[in-house]
Amino acid sequence: MTGSIVVVTAHVGDFVWRCGGAIALHAAKGIPVHLVCLSYGENGESNIAWKDASADQESVKGIRHAEAEAAAELLGARSVDFYDVGDYPMTVTAEIVGRLSEAFREYAPSLVITHPEKDPSNLDHCRTFEAVLSARMKAIAPGHGGNFISPPQVLCFEPHQTELCGFKPNMLLDITSVWEQKKHAMQTMPTQSNLWDYYERVALQRGAQAGRRAKTATLYGEAYQSIFPSVHTSLVE
Amino acid sequence: MTGSIVVVTAHVGDFVWRCGGAIALHAAKGIPVHLVCLSYGENGESNIAWKDASADQESVKGIRHAEAEAAAELLGARSVDFYDVGDYPMTVTAEIVGRLSEAFREYAPSLVITHPEKDPSNLDHCRTFEAVLSARMKAIAPGHGGNFISPPQVLCFEPHQTELCGFKPNMLLDITSVWEQKKHAMQTMPTQSNLWDYYERVALQRGAQAGRRAKTATLYGEAYQSIFPSVHTSLVE
Amino acid sequence: MTGSIVVVTAHVGDFVWRCGGAIALHAAKGIPVHLVCLSYGENGESNIAWKDASADQESVKGIRHAEAEAAAELLGARSVDFYDVGDYPMTVTAEIVGRLSEAFREYAPSLVITHPEKDPSNLDHCRTFEAVLSARMKAIAPGHGGNFISPPQVLCFEPHQTELCGFKPNMLLDITSVWEQKKHAMQTMPTQSNLWDYYERVALQRGAQAGRRAKTATLYGEAYQSIFPSVHTSLVE
Amino acid sequence: MTGSIVVVTAHVGDFVWRCGGAIALHAAKGIPVHLVCLSYGENGESNIAWKDASADQESVKGIRHAEAEAAAELLGARSVDFYDVGDYPMTVTAEIVGRLSEAFREYAPSLVITHPEKDPSNLDHCRTFEAVLSARMKAIAPGHGGNFISPPQVLCFEPHQTELCGFKPNMLLDITSVWEQKKHAMQTMPTQSNLWDYYERVALQRGAQAGRRAKTATLYGEAYQSIFPSVHTSLVE
Amino acid sequence: MTGSIVVVTAHVGDFVWRCGGAIALHAAKGIPVHLVCLSYGENGESNIAWKDASADQESVKGIRHAEAEAAAELLGARSVDFYDVGDYPMTVTAEIVGRLSEAFREYAPSLVITHPEKDPSNLDHCRTFEAVLSARMKAIAPGHGGNFISPPQVLCFEPHQTELCGFKPNMLLDITSVWEQKKHAMQTMPTQSNLWDYYERVALQRGAQAGRRAKTATLYGEAYQSIFPSVHTSLVE
Amino acid sequence: MTGSIVVVTAHVGDFVWRCGGAIALHAAKGIPVHLVCLSYGENGESNIAWKDASADQESVKGIRHAEAEAAAELLGARSVDFYDVGDYPMTVTAEIVGRLSEAFREYAPSLVITHPEKDPSNLDHCRTFEAVLSARMKAIAPGHGGNFISPPQVLCFEPHQTELCGFKPNMLLDITSVWEQKKHAMQTMPTQSNLWDYYERVALQRGAQAGRRAKTATLYGEAYQSIFPSVHTSLVE
Repeated sequence: MTGSIVVVTAHVGDFVWRCGGAIALHAAKGIPVHLVCLSYGENGESNIAWKDASADQESVKGIRHAEAEAAAELLGARSVDFYDVGDYPMTVTAEIVGRLSEAFREYAPSLVITHPEKDPSNLDHCRTFEAVLSARMKAIAPGHGGNFISPPQVLCFEPHQTELCGFKPNMLLDITSVWEQKKHAMQTMPTQSNLWDYYERVALQRGAQAGRRAKTATLYGEAYQSIFPSVHTSLVE
Repeated sequence: MTGSIVVVTAHVGDFVWRCGGAIALHAAKGIPVHLVCLSYGENGESNIAWKDASADQESVKGIRHAEAEAAAELLGARSVDFYDVGDYPMTVTAEIVGRLSEAFREYAPSLVITHPEKDPSNLDHCRTFEAVLSARMKAIAPGHGGNFISPPQVLCFEPHQTELCGFKPNMLLDITSVWEQKKHAMQTMPTQSNLWDYYERVALQRGAQAGRRAKTATLYGEAYQSIFPSVHTSLVE
Repeated sequence: MTGSIVVVTAHVGDFVWRCGGAIALHAAKGIPVHLVCLSYGENGESNIAWKDASADQESVKGIRHAEAEAAAELLGARSVDFYDVGDYPMTVTAEIVGRLSEAFREYAPSLVITHPEKDPSNLDHCRTFEAVLSARMKAIAPGHGGNFISPPQVLCFEPHQTELCGFKPNMLLDITSVWEQKKHAMQTMPTQSNLWDYYERVALQRGAQAGRRAKTATLYGEAYQSIFPSVHTSLVE
Repeated sequence: MTGSIVVVTAHVGDFVWRCGGAIALHAAKGIPVHLVCLSYGENGESNIAWKDASADQESVKGIRHAEAEAAAELLGARSVDFYDVGDYPMTVTAEIVGRLSEAFREYAPSLVITHPEKDPSNLDHCRTFEAVLSARMKAIAPGHGGNFISPPQVLCFEPHQTELCGFKPNMLLDITSVWEQKKHAMQTMPTQSNLWDYYERVALQRGAQAGRRAKTATLYGEAYQSIFPSVHTSLVE
Repeated sequence: MTGSIVVVTAHVGDFVWRCGGAIALHAAKGIPVHLVCLSYGENGESNIAWKDASADQESVKGIRHAEAEAAAELLGARSVDFYDVGDYPMTVTAEIVGRLSEAFREYAPSLVITHPEKDPSNLDHCRTFEAVLSARMKAIAPGHGGNFISPPQVLCFEPHQTELCGFKPNMLLDITSVWEQKKHAMQTMPTQSNLWDYYERVALQRGAQAGRRAKTATLYGEAYQSIFPSVHTSLVE
Repeated sequence: MTGSIVVVTAHVGDFVWRCGGAIALHAAKGIPVHLVCLSYGENGESNIAWKDASADQESVKGIRHAEAEAAAELLGARSVDFYDVGDYPMTVTAEIVGRLSEAFREYAPSLVITHPEKDPSNLDHCRTFEAVLSARMKAIAPGHGGNFISPPQVLCFEPHQTELCGFKPNMLLDITSVWEQKKHAMQTMPTQSNLWDYYERVALQRGAQAGRRAKTATLYGEAYQSIFPSVHTSLVE
């Protein structure tokens, strides 16, 4: 009877590098995973595409749209939605918060996954975190309509340079069983091929850390930080 | 195939007020729970006993020993051990760390529960936290004997005044089903009857907080903070 | 010759649960206490009202307006003002900051009481904190008019789940003498009757904590965190 | 082949009190230093000017404009630009971020110096910090034009009351050789003559702290906190 | 009916530079102020004395003893006690904690003033903080004797480089009225004459900060951070 | 005229994995680098050696001693000293602090490199950090002998799991030019061959992070956090 998972990212690539394993893993269990990309990352995270002298905003967005749809399908996401709000820097309006809130009401997630609160090198990530918290508030308020939801847990995935963002993971997810899927999804994004090796190494490091205490061999992992205390009926993992 | 749980406290009362629910809950599931009390709390946490003009160290320790054994039995703990190191303030020697380390090797816990790192009002709690981390190191080192263990998770239970101790719970445990047991255990400790109402209210507050996101009605709760990232095969609670 | 106190809250209930004791206590000493409620909490903090199938925004606001006026009167507040900016989530415009700043200039408070800076479960509280700091700046600037004021101290009252908000109280207020008044004020807000017991327990816990060092018996308390260093002519409380 | 330095401040006085030494020192080495003042500080940081009964917004801005140009020249700044966005409180629009971003593209700084992230007594400083990070993002994004730059380091200078702002300096700059220049620059700002002695003492304290480990006699200093890790080919200062 | 104040410092100079104003101010009000110096600072804080080629441990201790007694008398302290535990680095034994605890039982302070918790440049300060917390525990425990005391507030005075120590003052004390006394006390310590100007500037900075919100002209100040929440019957300073 | 560098580690492997690049890089510039290993890591960090049924403390120490000497030579260290204090857990006595302090006096380092302050999974690292700060105090105190030194900077190298240790690097060192040397040094330690790939990936991640802002191609890096503010005559890297 578990609800769905909604992943909200600032740019299209984020759902692959940062939580592609979680998407594939839960999708494989039959849990619906819905993706929302606030922007295409067209301005600041598509540098390879801009090396083409004929590139313009629409052509770059088109490339990233296609890459993201392919990756989402490979990972087994139930849906992927593009809000196209622009990036570097991103502005999140009340309308965008409202739209995200409606998505939360529709999908009734028990879990939302997004960026951590802080990132001095990338304020789009901060804006997205804030948008998630705002939309969560709106979605649980009965005054905004009768189909209000229970407040979902919010987990933050790993940023590019963890210490810069004050990221303190308290959960390590074993993604060994879906690693090949995540790797293929990464490779559907040649516009950011410069990140492939970096995030393979991230997965190996998190796998090694998880492996010290895991019950089974863990080769690949992803790290998460929970915003709200989780509710348990047992303390044993 | 989960290992046991070891609870390590500075004073005898601590295992009742702070994690009595967890003890009862896991014991009821058949998980062995072992208790280690570094001191009886005879000097600083037995004020009512000292109102008796004839009280001395041995008589007060005797009272607390009996109370702790009764409470441990009520909660279903498999064993309770008293190291009698003295309190207010406590000194933890290398021998005590060694003894605790041997207990870890014997019980091979997957989880150790103890005090949080900081408490300016009660350094005994800090010393106990440090002793747990030291004994954990010693227990996992092959150079100290062949029966070394895998490193267990460490969870900190709730201190008396959370903000003073920098306590940031990331887990709320629903103890509704064992609340009566915990309450009875508290009542077996009349030497600290001044705390009965206080910790009933703590349980109600944590229950109310957990209840906002729990799947079933939650009336009583306990809060925990994990020291190490937990390892997961699913992010959905 | 002490100035007045201004309390600024996101939603109408906040001034009762969080600082109703402080309002009553200082009002009883003849210090003028003025209340500003940025919203009625009509969308997200009036769930009981929305159970009435005929409820709409205006009817719910009307209920909360009446409740707040009754509570304010019971507590002895000199005035209560409603800015009606909406909630869940709240938007604070430059006009609202300007209006609040004018209130500060009119009341010339030596103390402003409001929400803490952080609350991931409720960004309205964060927006209110920020609005207070903005309005405080505007009120002390001579360029915005000749009746500028001296910068008041800002105290934050206790949020719903303290550790989630990084709340670190450095002041405990003994509200024993006005507890009955606060309790009655809480009961004038049946739209949030689910919070009555919770905040009675909060008052008892803070009272117990204060009682450990207070000179007189302390049964009920409220906790506060100061934003700016306080200025003293003696260090002895 | 080092790039230029851009200093971005909320109010005109800030570049003098907080980093006047750094401006003079680097200018003397031939490094171009460009100044951007988001406001004149006309409302909240020109109190002496407002004592003149005939003062109005335009006259006060005029006074501060002249003072700032004189100080900038004394310090050897290559340029000083005034965005005149207003102050106490300040609003930073997307247009202002865009303009600042264009300045970054034009000057291609290897270093940007600005306010620290937090200041509860002065949100204009926070807004400026955020504007710098936003403009930095925009300036490095190829989607916003072909003349994008490499991401510059960002250093925060010392705020008025360091502990209130969470300011943790990790760099002390020896400004002894340019102290007289900085002092003269301070004296070109009689509108804030109340700060002259305060910031002379700040310079002496930072000089004394630096002097404990410096290789040469250090009498005057300035403190800085880096936002991003600096890149080194040697760890020895 | 206020109790006494006990000041506990690592080295003899500390009580002068860091809280000489508080000592003089409260002594003048008739509040007994007792001083405990754990060491003479003979090894690491008496550099001028060691320039004398004939200096040895005893001669340097003798000089500092005389200086400290003269300063204590000038400030109006009721007593000054020297524990002579050695310094740079300092070791605090259980016996020293016991002796300090006995002093707390004798003086029954409502307030203890000491060093902040952290100082990477001077662990003696950390050891002293820890000794105060240990002795405080021992002094309040009925098991250690019938004359146990109520737990006093603990305030930390200002360290040499505040940000290095995580010092966050929440109280500013106006010491203008006793400044001349403090200055004379500083001058009775020629062995650390290198600090005279530094701490005069500290007093002026704290005075300036306090003066922004004080009711009367404040020229000199001292900063303090409270460890435990203070208990109030009014929130207005 | 720069002084030497002293590296102080808890276990022999630490100087290779964590700062082998820095050792090689500075040694190549002619800066003397001295190594102090407080223990051999024989109990807790030599697991592969203990798989040999005939292993005992002396044989394992012998293996690690030989490995460490070979690695030190490969990296160009001027000396390597073994204090053999034992590990898992480590006890640092006053004698050990004294010996380390004498080493500081002998080598007169301008820089000491060691473990970060916190590591809940490995208290030996914390004890080493504390020993360094204690020995540094002792080495700068004239009362402990005439050959006292100026206080050196202290840099912390990267721990195994950065976020667990609160590690916040503010310096990235480009070790590309000495990477092969570091790799060979790692391979001289087959007793911890399980770490080879892990620390090669760490170097690649830090290299990638540094490369975003470095002036030349950076493939391999090491991260450091400074404890004391560094003193500069220029802010441009």
